[in-house]
Amino acid sequence: MSGDQADDGDRQARLSERKDTVHRIIGTARGKDARFRDERITMAHGAGGKATATLIEGLLAPTFASPALKELADAGVIELGGARLAMTCDAFVVKPLRFPGGSIGELAVNGTVNDLAMAGARPGGMTLSLIMEEGLASDVLREEVEAVARAARTAGIEILGGDTKVVERGACDQLYMTTTGIGTVDDRARLSPSALVPGDVLIISGRIGEHGTAIMVARGEFELGADVRSDTRCLWPAVDALLGAAGPHLRCLRDATRGGVASVLNELAQASGVSMLVREADVPVLPVVAGAAELLGIDPMYVANEGAFVAAVAAAGADAAVAALRGVEGCEEARVFGQVEDGPEGLVLVETGFGGRRVMDQLVGDPLPRIC
Amino acid sequence: MSGDQADDGDRQARLSERKDTVHRIIGTARGKDARFRDERITMAHGAGGKATATLIEGLLAPTFASPALKELADAGVIELGGARLAMTCDAFVVKPLRFPGGSIGELAVNGTVNDLAMAGARPGGMTLSLIMEEGLASDVLREEVEAVARAARTAGIEILGGDTKVVERGACDQLYMTTTGIGTVDDRARLSPSALVPGDVLIISGRIGEHGTAIMVARGEFELGADVRSDTRCLWPAVDALLGAAGPHLRCLRDATRGGVASVLNELAQASGVSMLVREADVPVLPVVAGAAELLGIDPMYVANEGAFVAAVAAAGADAAVAALRGVEGCEEARVFGQVEDGPEGLVLVETGFGGRRVMDQLVGDPLPRIC
Repeated sequence: MSGDQADDGDRQARLSERKDTVHRIIGTARGKDARFRDERITMAHGAGGKATATLIEGLLAPTFASPALKELADAGVIELGGARLAMTCDAFVVKPLRFPGGSIGELAVNGTVNDLAMAGARPGGMTLSLIMEEGLASDVLREEVEAVARAARTAGIEILGGDTKVVERGACDQLYMTTTGIGTVDDRARLSPSALVPGDVLIISGRIGEHGTAIMVARGEFELGADVRSDTRCLWPAVDALLGAAGPHLRCLRDATRGGVASVLNELAQASGVSMLVREADVPVLPVVAGAAELLGIDPMYVANEGAFVAAVAAAGADAAVAALRGVEGCEEARVFGQVEDGPEGLVLVETGFGGRRVMDQLVGDPLPRIC
Repeated sequence: MSGDQADDGDRQARLSERKDTVHRIIGTARGKDARFRDERITMAHGAGGKATATLIEGLLAPTFASPALKELADAGVIELGGARLAMTCDAFVVKPLRFPGGSIGELAVNGTVNDLAMAGARPGGMTLSLIMEEGLASDVLREEVEAVARAARTAGIEILGGDTKVVERGACDQLYMTTTGIGTVDDRARLSPSALVPGDVLIISGRIGEHGTAIMVARGEFELGADVRSDTRCLWPAVDALLGAAGPHLRCLRDATRGGVASVLNELAQASGVSMLVREADVPVLPVVAGAAELLGIDPMYVANEGAFVAAVAAAGADAAVAALRGVEGCEEARVFGQVEDGPEGLVLVETGFGGRRVMDQLVGDPLPRIC
């Protein structure tokens, strides 16, 4: 929506000042000088926001000094034996293990498949590692192993191997899963988080905030009679459709898991050295999800999804991309919700439902721990 | 050693009776009818012995129903984009994080590289997933991240990507690492755990029992003034040498980690439907390791290694294989320690230092939890 333009001059002035400040902050915290200086690990380091970025960019990436890690994408790409492969890994520590719309086993497969899909790779195979707490009920384990098998069949990915470890009672919380997926990068895909240029449009694949909300409801953290289900799903069919309809126009795909859409946009704006402007009103959110977020004082843009992604697309491919997405189950509400602009590097602005604009920074702290 | 042959007839009779019993037990617990019936997960399910086998063969493998899993090897093999790739995954929950001779970071890389090497694959890339406990000291994390980077450089494997999760204080024990490695299967390698035939010889790559003993010493579980260090090392150079010297003669390679040499032999005997006879006196063990094992009432054959492996080789390639191994650092004491025989399927016999023979079954229970 366009909003009230009355005090536009004033707002622009305030905005410009804020942009400068934000730019400095971002330059310090996330630029080439990113340093990991915290004395201890906190929940925020696992939240997918600022602290996670500092840990990864300030410690892990420079220490490993690997070309594949420079892009900080959802999956690394490697050439092996003549094949161009994407490889991704994820740990799953979601609490509780089962929640409306899914469970840790389904999440583990879909999360892995989706990271491959975001790299433009068709899912090939995956490994599954289980860390189990002594005393875990076998029925719980069996249900999750079956959930893994079902989700893998749906996604068309083969389980190639695994590992099982048991730790003493109290040394983990029931069951953690870690997966790694590999797939072949589709020939139609030319994706990179640093490929965005001003004029590109930003597409959201569907409704947001449902996974994080479903987890909160399952934990009984607030009283909601509503039936909110996790959006966990395999996104390869959506990516396949996108590649077919707009392959050469696609700049980058990123699923909006931990840290939500806001964190994805910040990562991409930073990686490409561009600004973004997105419109809150063009992002589909269920009223119950918006209500729950308001209760918790969180913007739905920061709430985790497990079946929604952002696509940055050259303007020429936007209509075809949206049309292709809408034909895929779970993406019927796909739409353009913003664009890439030529402004301060890394700045993401959101036009709110009230017509104002504000900076949408990376997630700070961890309002919703262990959602995946 | 050959041992006392005086009461050979008697022994053979007892042995024959025992073979039948063992055969029945193995047939029930590990054959086609393997069922996972335990109500809860116990430490034994993570020990790499009988309970682990039941969990994998009775629940995981049949549920995932994947061709790659049927072989139950250290790594799955998949054809992707025209390349023949090995893929392996491992969770590391070792306690304590640092121990004489290594630490979790080094172990995570070497363990991954070694699983690839055992599949005849040259290490290519790996992912690293961290599950961290809230409150973990950053210095501890930094040391382990650096240990990962160092070990990866030594092994020539690239870190392709990773994941970080944080769980609340008390929901894990400081730091767990999960890795997945991929590599290209070497053209010289034609390896399979089901390829063993009577007449093949069994080679041990070097001294055994040092990793498990080092962990026990580090935990202060008994008083030992001795300096026992983990044997954690990258085994690809050893495998590369073996493939060069005896490639077509190699049947299978298996590193003797959890469950030790005894478990590896049982797995291979079962997978190939053969018997084995090994000679205790031909397995190199440091006196201090043997002493520690005796104190704990454990056979060193069941103690975990992180840099020793068993190679099953056609007799014609045995001398070349041993000679090649001895030229590689860490494998100077490689030797033939047994052979594959035409006896009851899955039966492993050991000729003891006293000249007797006894069944060397899979590990039961978990005398040394969380050694990797």
